[in-house]
Amino acid sequence: MKRIEVIGIEGIPEVSPGDDLADLIIRAVRAEGLEFLPGDILVVTQKVVSKAEGRLVSPDEVEPSPFAVEVGRMLGKDPRVVEVILREASRIVRMDSGVLITETKHGFICANSGVDASNVSASGRLLLLPEDPDASAARIRAAIMRATGVEVPVIISDSFGRPWREGIVNVAIGVSGMLPILNYRGQSDSHGVTLRVTQMAIADEIASASELAAGKVDGIPVVIIRGGCYVKGEGSARELLREPGKDLFR
Amino acid sequence: MKRIEVIGIEGIPEVSPGDDLADLIIRAVRAEGLEFLPGDILVVTQKVVSKAEGRLVSPDEVEPSPFAVEVGRMLGKDPRVVEVILREASRIVRMDSGVLITETKHGFICANSGVDASNVSASGRLLLLPEDPDASAARIRAAIMRATGVEVPVIISDSFGRPWREGIVNVAIGVSGMLPILNYRGQSDSHGVTLRVTQMAIADEIASASELAAGKVDGIPVVIIRGGCYVKGEGSARELLREPGKDLFR
Repeated sequence: MKRIEVIGIEGIPEVSPGDDLADLIIRAVRAEGLEFLPGDILVVTQKVVSKAEGRLVSPDEVEPSPFAVEVGRMLGKDPRVVEVILREASRIVRMDSGVLITETKHGFICANSGVDASNVSASGRLLLLPEDPDASAARIRAAIMRATGVEVPVIISDSFGRPWREGIVNVAIGVSGMLPILNYRGQSDSHGVTLRVTQMAIADEIASASELAAGKVDGIPVVIIRGGCYVKGEGSARELLREPGKDLFR
Repeated sequence: MKRIEVIGIEGIPEVSPGDDLADLIIRAVRAEGLEFLPGDILVVTQKVVSKAEGRLVSPDEVEPSPFAVEVGRMLGKDPRVVEVILREASRIVRMDSGVLITETKHGFICANSGVDASNVSASGRLLLLPEDPDASAARIRAAIMRATGVEVPVIISDSFGRPWREGIVNVAIGVSGMLPILNYRGQSDSHGVTLRVTQMAIADEIASASELAAGKVDGIPVVIIRGGCYVKGEGSARELLREPGKDLFR
């Protein structure tokens, strides 16, 4: 049998701007009586990364543009929140039925540019996506390497909606230390038939797997995937973005 | 900590039409020295389900319609394969750049109506999706209950592409015995902030997690997810399909 463990790390304290997130994670892992092992992958939810990086905006500090006021009226949203969403966006993908789907400056297509009003402390501030989630992942990976001597790929995850299917799923918005896509093109399957176009978005599947031990309500922001189900590489979440020219759904 | 195991079951033999798949799975689980435990979820890949159910078509038996011939010429595909794809479809969603994305009669939106020419034995036959994957899941679940006395939800998984993001991911195309969507609407998160619109497509995330211990090339078609990360319910993969009227991307 092939056995992978998905381990939710409890005991991460409330994260604040300026906190050393890697240090908090390493301490929490040790407090659980665990240590990082070769083959581990670390999945960290975007929320704690963004909080540690101070990616918070108070709506009171925001002056909405006339367009943000108009969009807010159309969608039934606070125009200051719309303004923050637009500032994070490079493009509006859809705008209808109270939903604002944008392409972020990183190239992610998601609701509200990934700006989140839930799960932020009582201050009522809005949480933005990390400025460069690959770099956030690389920093955590480097800190774990320094502190423990173990090479652990890091995925920053966030939950995005998708067309056609109900519900949100966790995907990888930052990757460091592993290939986000496994390319089976040209390999043979178990019957000797050549696989022609199979590219598995393994980093997204790992992000989704992490949800099983995390859970929105449980508030477990850090998960170790143990069992060596990755291929080493520098990696970047950009590899998971479909080229606009190849995307039939833009 | 919260610990979930993803266990790939090896030793499932080559599956043929008419095989008792549930029996093959139960035997393979026992041969691994395992038994089903309360809290387990069983994920079975579509391919073995379709094979056991005899959902195979030889292109030689198919007379392509004039439209299939035309589409085949446009997309560079065998018109007989196109004919099979069209027979499984209720609607063409996109048709461009060699890609044929359809809505299947079940309501799934995927490439080629889910018709697969890879991973089928040397006969060269095409493998169709199960006729009713929820019913396939329910049959396996009932057989496990009869044989072991344990209630194990079953997910039938398949790997689908998606807009905007590269690579395919495993999703749930059949569900029995669990809620496919966890609804956090109105619940509070760890900071007491009410979660407004969080519906996690947990069955899809479980299907994705199963890939970590399965793998296209390894050819492990059956995975146990152990650790009790589900909510009981009758369940249906139809709950994962977005209502056309609410889908901004149709």
